[in-house]
Amino acid sequence: ALGLPRVYATWEAMLEAERALPEGERIDAVSIVTPNHVHYPVAHAFAEAGFHVICDKPLCLTSDEAADLVAVRDANGIVFAVTYNYTGYPMVVQARDMIAAGAIGAIRKVIVEYNQGWLATKVEATGLKQAGWRTDPSKAGAGALGDIGSHAENLVATVTGLELASICADVSSFVDGRVVDDDASALLRFRGGAKGVLIASQIAVGDENDLRLRVYGTEGSLRWRQERPNRLELRRLDGPIETLTRGGGSYLSAAAEAHARIPSGHPEGFLEAFGNIYANVAAAIHGLDADYPDVAAGARGVRFIEAALRSAENGATWTSVE
Amino acid sequence: ALGLPRVYATWEAMLEAERALPEGERIDAVSIVTPNHVHYPVAHAFAEAGFHVICDKPLCLTSDEAADLVAVRDANGIVFAVTYNYTGYPMVVQARDMIAAGAIGAIRKVIVEYNQGWLATKVEATGLKQAGWRTDPSKAGAGALGDIGSHAENLVATVTGLELASICADVSSFVDGRVVDDDASALLRFRGGAKGVLIASQIAVGDENDLRLRVYGTEGSLRWRQERPNRLELRRLDGPIETLTRGGGSYLSAAAEAHARIPSGHPEGFLEAFGNIYANVAAAIHGLDADYPDVAAGARGVRFIEAALRSAENGATWTSVE
Amino acid sequence: ALGLPRVYATWEAMLEAERALPEGERIDAVSIVTPNHVHYPVAHAFAEAGFHVICDKPLCLTSDEAADLVAVRDANGIVFAVTYNYTGYPMVVQARDMIAAGAIGAIRKVIVEYNQGWLATKVEATGLKQAGWRTDPSKAGAGALGDIGSHAENLVATVTGLELASICADVSSFVDGRVVDDDASALLRFRGGAKGVLIASQIAVGDENDLRLRVYGTEGSLRWRQERPNRLELRRLDGPIETLTRGGGSYLSAAAEAHARIPSGHPEGFLEAFGNIYANVAAAIHGLDADYPDVAAGARGVRFIEAALRSAENGATWTSVE
Amino acid sequence: ALGLPRVYATWEAMLEAERALPEGERIDAVSIVTPNHVHYPVAHAFAEAGFHVICDKPLCLTSDEAADLVAVRDANGIVFAVTYNYTGYPMVVQARDMIAAGAIGAIRKVIVEYNQGWLATKVEATGLKQAGWRTDPSKAGAGALGDIGSHAENLVATVTGLELASICADVSSFVDGRVVDDDASALLRFRGGAKGVLIASQIAVGDENDLRLRVYGTEGSLRWRQERPNRLELRRLDGPIETLTRGGGSYLSAAAEAHARIPSGHPEGFLEAFGNIYANVAAAIHGLDADYPDVAAGARGVRFIEAALRSAENGATWTSVE
Repeated sequence: ALGLPRVYATWEAMLEAERALPEGERIDAVSIVTPNHVHYPVAHAFAEAGFHVICDKPLCLTSDEAADLVAVRDANGIVFAVTYNYTGYPMVVQARDMIAAGAIGAIRKVIVEYNQGWLATKVEATGLKQAGWRTDPSKAGAGALGDIGSHAENLVATVTGLELASICADVSSFVDGRVVDDDASALLRFRGGAKGVLIASQIAVGDENDLRLRVYGTEGSLRWRQERPNRLELRRLDGPIETLTRGGGSYLSAAAEAHARIPSGHPEGFLEAFGNIYANVAAAIHGLDADYPDVAAGARGVRFIEAALRSAENGATWTSVE
Repeated sequence: ALGLPRVYATWEAMLEAERALPEGERIDAVSIVTPNHVHYPVAHAFAEAGFHVICDKPLCLTSDEAADLVAVRDANGIVFAVTYNYTGYPMVVQARDMIAAGAIGAIRKVIVEYNQGWLATKVEATGLKQAGWRTDPSKAGAGALGDIGSHAENLVATVTGLELASICADVSSFVDGRVVDDDASALLRFRGGAKGVLIASQIAVGDENDLRLRVYGTEGSLRWRQERPNRLELRRLDGPIETLTRGGGSYLSAAAEAHARIPSGHPEGFLEAFGNIYANVAAAIHGLDADYPDVAAGARGVRFIEAALRSAENGATWTSVE
Repeated sequence: ALGLPRVYATWEAMLEAERALPEGERIDAVSIVTPNHVHYPVAHAFAEAGFHVICDKPLCLTSDEAADLVAVRDANGIVFAVTYNYTGYPMVVQARDMIAAGAIGAIRKVIVEYNQGWLATKVEATGLKQAGWRTDPSKAGAGALGDIGSHAENLVATVTGLELASICADVSSFVDGRVVDDDASALLRFRGGAKGVLIASQIAVGDENDLRLRVYGTEGSLRWRQERPNRLELRRLDGPIETLTRGGGSYLSAAAEAHARIPSGHPEGFLEAFGNIYANVAAAIHGLDADYPDVAAGARGVRFIEAALRSAENGATWTSVE
Repeated sequence: ALGLPRVYATWEAMLEAERALPEGERIDAVSIVTPNHVHYPVAHAFAEAGFHVICDKPLCLTSDEAADLVAVRDANGIVFAVTYNYTGYPMVVQARDMIAAGAIGAIRKVIVEYNQGWLATKVEATGLKQAGWRTDPSKAGAGALGDIGSHAENLVATVTGLELASICADVSSFVDGRVVDDDASALLRFRGGAKGVLIASQIAVGDENDLRLRVYGTEGSLRWRQERPNRLELRRLDGPIETLTRGGGSYLSAAAEAHARIPSGHPEGFLEAFGNIYANVAAAIHGLDADYPDVAAGARGVRFIEAALRSAENGATWTSVE
């Protein structure tokens, strides 16, 4: 009914059948949008078979799996993308390009948050499917840290280019009977001396998808917020607060402009940003020089989650991410 | 020229002369608005002499001094206030009263920030007086932690009623050659299980006096921001976001209403909030039943600063505040 | 290259060829996204031939043409939609449904604005295609009134259900050498006694697509803004300001919910709203009971433009819209 | 009890007694904060007696009275101020100075609004004193036009320097049984070709004191809003949106800076702005070169109110303000 040329009952059947098709007829890439625990086996199998892979985050459940996927990617010369979709927003691209160009000087401090309130009560007990697997450690791995903390980590890495060195994370399961973490607050230290705070919560009553980033440098600061994604704020040591908008042609980087579709003032949103990631991956698959979050970024995300959980288990103590 | 009846060259001269005046003619109270290191001797001396004391924050430089001032207050039966001025805003009073009345259920998480950018460069080297003593440890004690972190601590304590149990603070002096801290990020644990994050920075380029508080409970959350003080935001598990304003008579607590002066929509600001603190202290001095931040709150603030600095010295490890 | 099965050089060729195809093979509908002066002939011809029509706004250049298109639609029993795309936003649907349900009582006053700044200078002289035909009266008909004023008129009509009775419009061409209007301010009177203000400007430097609506009733008011479309604000005679969001399931009307795609907090934008219009039209073409802006709404828009221009020509005097 | 040296039962008694005192002992100025109908007799009498006058707005009930007060002021060489208090905000001063300096080029369009909701129901019937005289034409003269429309008119005149030439005003009394106007919408034409819209309403449910101004010029636009008074927004033909704050020393005009008291980020509000007007008047009384809204501005306001009411009586037709 959806007009799909071929449909399979299992990923194994899909792999077998598609592998058997001649090149040009078979699929180019597999897109993995399952619960987390299914990422690794599917990604591994299709990557080994030479298919390009587009995988949801978190990439997989352990850093060993992640390292293996990086190796498989390298060995097979495929495109292996991880859908850190928020980095597809034009103004996130703009922030990244401005920081790279020195617009705020050397970074001193980063504050990143991803707050949601939808798990503030035990909704997994109501049969809500999205909550069910996300709060089941066998399927999700981590809770808030994996589901949204990983987005926060990736946003910082993408925009700032900083490398996270160590983390001190206080992680909680506030809702009675919940096994996975639903709240995390962490102090961050980056290579080179910058510091930061990362907050990821799913018990933040009233927050929807409040991913936001502030980056403070020696000469300026940048702020961006997912719920108002078409704007980016720059503040300098002196001068008015500057609000850049998606359509501000004269000051947008070429890459930021390339990630926008319609005239400024006409809001673009989540779907367009997500689409940008897919478009970039498609370009890469076609051999073009395109930027996209790859399996190495995904592996870094898994190491971040592991380090945060390890820190928490040790009483919220400093833990190396490397 | 200012119409002051009596003026003194030193506080010692003032103390001596005022003490010699008959009751009814002498001053009721001394207001201490000096750099921090002068708080303790003046407060101690005037309190001992039976004068009421109104002292800027931080109360003093050490928790021993603080404990002594509490004792002196108790021994002399005076009013001893510490000007945590931000708690004088009507909507802060409203937030406190709503939480006490259970509007957001049991508190799980608190995020408090006080970010400024004015010390992002070495302005103390330019001769700016306000920066000079604030960055001189002999006069200020701590830097950002004392100057603004103490406000953040007090705001949390006042609004939530939570008792801070321990803190893990990463504290920095980002500006070259600066001796005191100019940035702090801390994880908080409260008695009873609530957790939190406290951020206080004076190198946050472009921030002015961005004191803001978010409190997440089991049934709702509250948000307030000093730079837009006439509004308070409530979000519930279900229902629209609610923005309460200073003039919303029907839902304001009696105390919140009593802290406002003019019709809603006419902004009140810093001076009115500060004035409310003084008015409350004056009422207390006149024997009325008035709420004000007292020396015990000031002492708690000093213990917070000490604990944060101790945590930082130990590599940002968990440190008891009690 | 785009994978379109059939492509034509002219609309006349398209009409002839498609008409010749057997039912089931030929197109269901024609979508007219040309400059304004081409709307009428194409719409008329395809409608007469029994094709469904989806036409950009303004529907056509004169109210006579508009009346004819309504008649042709009626005679041919087709779906004839006009893409007032902003009415496809979920929160616009919500506002409409709330007003219909009496949430703000009887409407007294409406303020609608659509401000843009992109024509504040003579960009049509730079060769900018979008500006070229829009400022050429032979192609556009009216200027700001037709291009964006018509959206404002339709938004009011859709959300409030009010019928515009008369208008007093002051219309300007501020940019030297421009022939069409680039700014309009108008007083509105509705049947039943409500009043209003409509502002449409393309010389509002710095505004992007700042379409916004405020509706004041006897018991409440509603506010919506296209540049932040996922929110709708309700204020009542008493109580906090209420901000409704796209994902607020418990208070959204069924129709509003049906116009949303993804979880709240993930912004939807212009393209999704536009898509909603197309989806509704498609449903109507398939015989389902779907709501969409039709040719009668388009005709009403043309009468509005004509009345506004007539008012302006007579020195901004009151002019009937009926 | 308030510590006032002298108190009188009537203004006549006050005038007689003060006039009898030797210079240096008698009052410098009379401040008239009565209902509107008492302005003229008091102002006239004290001005004739050589006292400086500080009078609330609207200055008086008719343009004849206003002209007389201007003449009396001129004849007696006194300071005669009218408390258009909103012009005392630092960022209003800044807007005025920026426009005078050409920051937005030649002004094309002005939109000014002052919306309140407190008179959306018949509160005057509840005994509310502030509503009682304001809705009694014998005491107030006009309703919304006089009470808040006059502030809007003055804000435009002060900030833009434009002279209002004619007005087309649609004026309503929406609340049953109310005699004075409670809502007005008007088109404005200024000398020199600029146009505008003025909206003043007291039935705008949920609005508190939402005075706001937008000024569009050939090269930029400025926006200011009384409920967030410490900010001023500048948008240019190209470049980011710029938000100026009260503390932005390097870009503030000397006059704007002189109207601020405390560090930026610490909000100043209504009382400080009102105080600035009084401080300026006091300076003028002391012979200093100070800027303040004078009786001529007050007279212009009365002519505006009269013209608006005349326009409305004639069916909302264009009426000269001169």
